[in-house]
Amino acid sequence: MREVAIIGCGMTKFGRRGDRSLIDLMVEASVKAIEHAGIDKKRIDALYAASMLCGELTHQTAIASALADELGILPAAAERLENGPASGGSAVKNAFLAVASGLYDFVLVTGGEKMRHVAGDVITDLLATMSHPTAEYIHGVTLPSLAAMFARLYMKKYGVTRKHLALVAVKNHANALKNPYAHIHRPLTIEGIYSAPEAEVNNPVVADPLRLFDFCPVTDGAASVLLCPAEKAREFCDTIVVISGIGHATDTLAVHEREDPTILKAVRLSAEMAFKMAKTSPKDIDVVELHDAFTILEIAESEDAGFFEKGTGHKALEEGVTALDGDLPINPSGGLKARGHPVGATGVAQLVELTWQLRGEAGKRQVEGAEQAFSCNLGGFGNNVVSFVLKRVR
Amino acid sequence: MREVAIIGCGMTKFGRRGDRSLIDLMVEASVKAIEHAGIDKKRIDALYAASMLCGELTHQTAIASALADELGILPAAAERLENGPASGGSAVKNAFLAVASGLYDFVLVTGGEKMRHVAGDVITDLLATMSHPTAEYIHGVTLPSLAAMFARLYMKKYGVTRKHLALVAVKNHANALKNPYAHIHRPLTIEGIYSAPEAEVNNPVVADPLRLFDFCPVTDGAASVLLCPAEKAREFCDTIVVISGIGHATDTLAVHEREDPTILKAVRLSAEMAFKMAKTSPKDIDVVELHDAFTILEIAESEDAGFFEKGTGHKALEEGVTALDGDLPINPSGGLKARGHPVGATGVAQLVELTWQLRGEAGKRQVEGAEQAFSCNLGGFGNNVVSFVLKRVR
Repeated sequence: MREVAIIGCGMTKFGRRGDRSLIDLMVEASVKAIEHAGIDKKRIDALYAASMLCGELTHQTAIASALADELGILPAAAERLENGPASGGSAVKNAFLAVASGLYDFVLVTGGEKMRHVAGDVITDLLATMSHPTAEYIHGVTLPSLAAMFARLYMKKYGVTRKHLALVAVKNHANALKNPYAHIHRPLTIEGIYSAPEAEVNNPVVADPLRLFDFCPVTDGAASVLLCPAEKAREFCDTIVVISGIGHATDTLAVHEREDPTILKAVRLSAEMAFKMAKTSPKDIDVVELHDAFTILEIAESEDAGFFEKGTGHKALEEGVTALDGDLPINPSGGLKARGHPVGATGVAQLVELTWQLRGEAGKRQVEGAEQAFSCNLGGFGNNVVSFVLKRVR
Repeated sequence: MREVAIIGCGMTKFGRRGDRSLIDLMVEASVKAIEHAGIDKKRIDALYAASMLCGELTHQTAIASALADELGILPAAAERLENGPASGGSAVKNAFLAVASGLYDFVLVTGGEKMRHVAGDVITDLLATMSHPTAEYIHGVTLPSLAAMFARLYMKKYGVTRKHLALVAVKNHANALKNPYAHIHRPLTIEGIYSAPEAEVNNPVVADPLRLFDFCPVTDGAASVLLCPAEKAREFCDTIVVISGIGHATDTLAVHEREDPTILKAVRLSAEMAFKMAKTSPKDIDVVELHDAFTILEIAESEDAGFFEKGTGHKALEEGVTALDGDLPINPSGGLKARGHPVGATGVAQLVELTWQLRGEAGKRQVEGAEQAFSCNLGGFGNNVVSFVLKRVR
């Protein structure tokens, strides 16, 4: 298997993007990645597009063909990956394999989603189509309701409190203030969303015990990375970042079928695979992007990915270990919580952030001297997980 | 790159399958492929699912997760490929790369579509969402109307007549009679659909010059192949079939932007790539499956894939060269025209048929002594094409 480098990254401003179509957003992110690499686009052999809901939300299918055409990279091979909210991770994984196998040299991966033009209840319903059709969906289960039940179990079993959940939001909103691409630029305080008398109003219940600021926003946006064999990367960058590990695992679709629903087994397995392939371990990771679609997920994933003992993630959070200036910054970008979660873009956006971090290009949120990074992209409610380890090699 | 073999194949009966859900159909095809290989399913490392419209037509997304769970192959990696009607070809290509790269050993690919439960105009509209959104779709273009314009140009330029189109239908319906999995088991005669007085009634105009029997049916069904490194294939089969070549290329999304719209450039390029990778040429191919969603496409593809000079495919057809007992049987399965076209299943079903042919397991439609085979799977109206060469190696 050839070693594979990320030589270019790009993303759109995440947020309400009523001014742009899905393809427009994906073109913008792609062009930025191409320009970041400084490559002649004619050299691109293939395009992997990621989107969960392009057909349902924008009435356009086969978007990889459309994007290749708009970018002027014909006759590059093109296809779309859909893997729920892990569509971006899946696209990068398959693009990696296309380069690692030797079939292609230069492969663009662009994930995007356009969601804000549709009513919220439609989005909630469409996202729920990834749940179990007869054991969950048909009974009215939504992703927020699964997250609420998961949070309740977690709080009971490990002593996590509502304050800990609020701390995730406060941290990630603070990080997002330093990220010009983030959807939400709004400082939060623990008083404002948790302890002050007006907190109940500021932060109302959505699905008890989860409140408004426990949820990621609905976001439009796109993100893009350009891959090539590491041996060819020197032509494009001084600092070379490689994908040193990939892990991918599944768990039961229905959450209630898991032996212990508080354990995200697919996170555990995929992280173990990624660390093994990268010949490294959680203790050697300098910066992390986790899939915090709900605040509780950041805490759970930080444990199941191997960074903290099970049941202690909330303590590390409370002690500031996962803050931008802590020992293990988690979600310096602001995470799904505040950078936003254009579903198909997220897995790619995580790698954009981490590549910038490893190249020292992360601006005000730079984690100094970061050499190895980890990301974890969840499809479904933890039932399909793609994890990556990135490494600065020179 | 490791050599990759197809060690198991399975498919459902294609047709109206109101008795089964999409996942049911995909499970059935998958289990047949697993049983055909005779492998313990616990050894499966990954699943690639293919479907163009599962979200739109069955209100279920992230179907790869659901299928992995239903099959009991957790924690196998799982993801879905969507590439319009070339979704199946794209899924096999990426599964191939996963094995060729060395990441996985045993990879299942299952394509499926459930379409018959929805009104025909909804299907026509959803299929049109793969056309150019502002240059075609918004003006009312549908795939049948594109095919009609393409056929008209083709007839004018190369002397193809309506009789030639009818001959494709007659041939493929005859082949499908020998295929128990085919959707349509209905013999056609050239008199009945073309020359007899009642032919105008039997075969009415749909999009002039195309008539009812120029179109593939709307079909439910699924197909599955199991891949592994060729070096491990001996454990599962006496006759080993390998994927010796893959080609994948794109063309302009809008058909009118092509220099000569009668040339399927992406078919040409992808076929050239596949033949080059397989170190073979069209003259050494013994059996072929083409993407005859419309009769005219079989003729055009037979030329652009390199089997006949441009403008002579209809003559080869007329002379019986492409008949089951001809020198180069095309669509022995009945093709999309009569086996049916469950969109996401088609690219996989083509490889199922060709593997059976190369293993001598094709029953009454067996092409004796076939050693090399070729398939071509079109996404969009010829703008995204995945081609394969298969070879019997021992």
